[in-house]
Amino acid sequence: MIDRRFMDRALELGCAAAAAGEVPVGAVVTRNGAIVGEAHNAPRDLHDPTAHAEILAIRRAAETLGTERLTDCDLWVTLEPCAMCAGAIVHARIGRLYYAASDPKGGAVEHGARVFDQPQCLHRPEVYGGIGEQRAADMLQGFFRQRR
Amino acid sequence: MIDRRFMDRALELGCAAAAAGEVPVGAVVTRNGAIVGEAHNAPRDLHDPTAHAEILAIRRAAETLGTERLTDCDLWVTLEPCAMCAGAIVHARIGRLYYAASDPKGGAVEHGARVFDQPQCLHRPEVYGGIGEQRAADMLQGFFRQRR
Repeated sequence: MIDRRFMDRALELGCAAAAAGEVPVGAVVTRNGAIVGEAHNAPRDLHDPTAHAEILAIRRAAETLGTERLTDCDLWVTLEPCAMCAGAIVHARIGRLYYAASDPKGGAVEHGARVFDQPQCLHRPEVYGGIGEQRAADMLQGFFRQRR
Repeated sequence: MIDRRFMDRALELGCAAAAAGEVPVGAVVTRNGAIVGEAHNAPRDLHDPTAHAEILAIRRAAETLGTERLTDCDLWVTLEPCAMCAGAIVHARIGRLYYAASDPKGGAVEHGARVFDQPQCLHRPEVYGGIGEQRAADMLQGFFRQRR
């Protein structure tokens, strides 16, 4: 049973990113059924090229829990993580990754660098793709259509 | 002509990491021959699984320059970047990457995910490996020998 409330919250955060002029991606880290970190994409606002939703949510969860290891935590994100974020998920030892839309251009889970499939990968989360996919894809398409 | 002073500084930062009980990796971001961001590895101290030397140095450089794009900048780091850091180098649009020791276990430049070699990779820095390699390898080996 997948609790879709957390993906709903990630989608809400993605909408907030769009309203702030950022590419609409939202992420939530949960532990024992509660949110311990959440964020939306914010590289422009923060002047930080690493400020993807997943990185910020992981950093906030680690700060909240006072540890660099998020072993018992799950990550919910509206877009397939890129190589940077997939690498961060490995370092954080995230238990389960749930994502919505797949990203053939920038994703590195089922595309490109396929970070978790490398023989050298030290930690592989369980991966569940396609949760709330259509809503996440609509959100991204609407954002890019509006800016054209 | 490669200006080795910046790798010397990265090695110094790596030594400071070891003294603080962190895996000894140091990184420096330069622009027009001056340092605009530098850091050592600090995930334990900061309770932040993303706090690799490269990520922190890139974030500091972007903050200093007030932009998320470090197009005219170079990154000097004592160890081959992992997938997370290679991805951050892409997002930051780093011009040249200089690294010291290669890392068959965790590196993602010449090993594993080979982030810059993916057809979908949006930006490829010029890459120079093996600058100060022996000193960086000695530093890492000394650190792990001491902790055994």
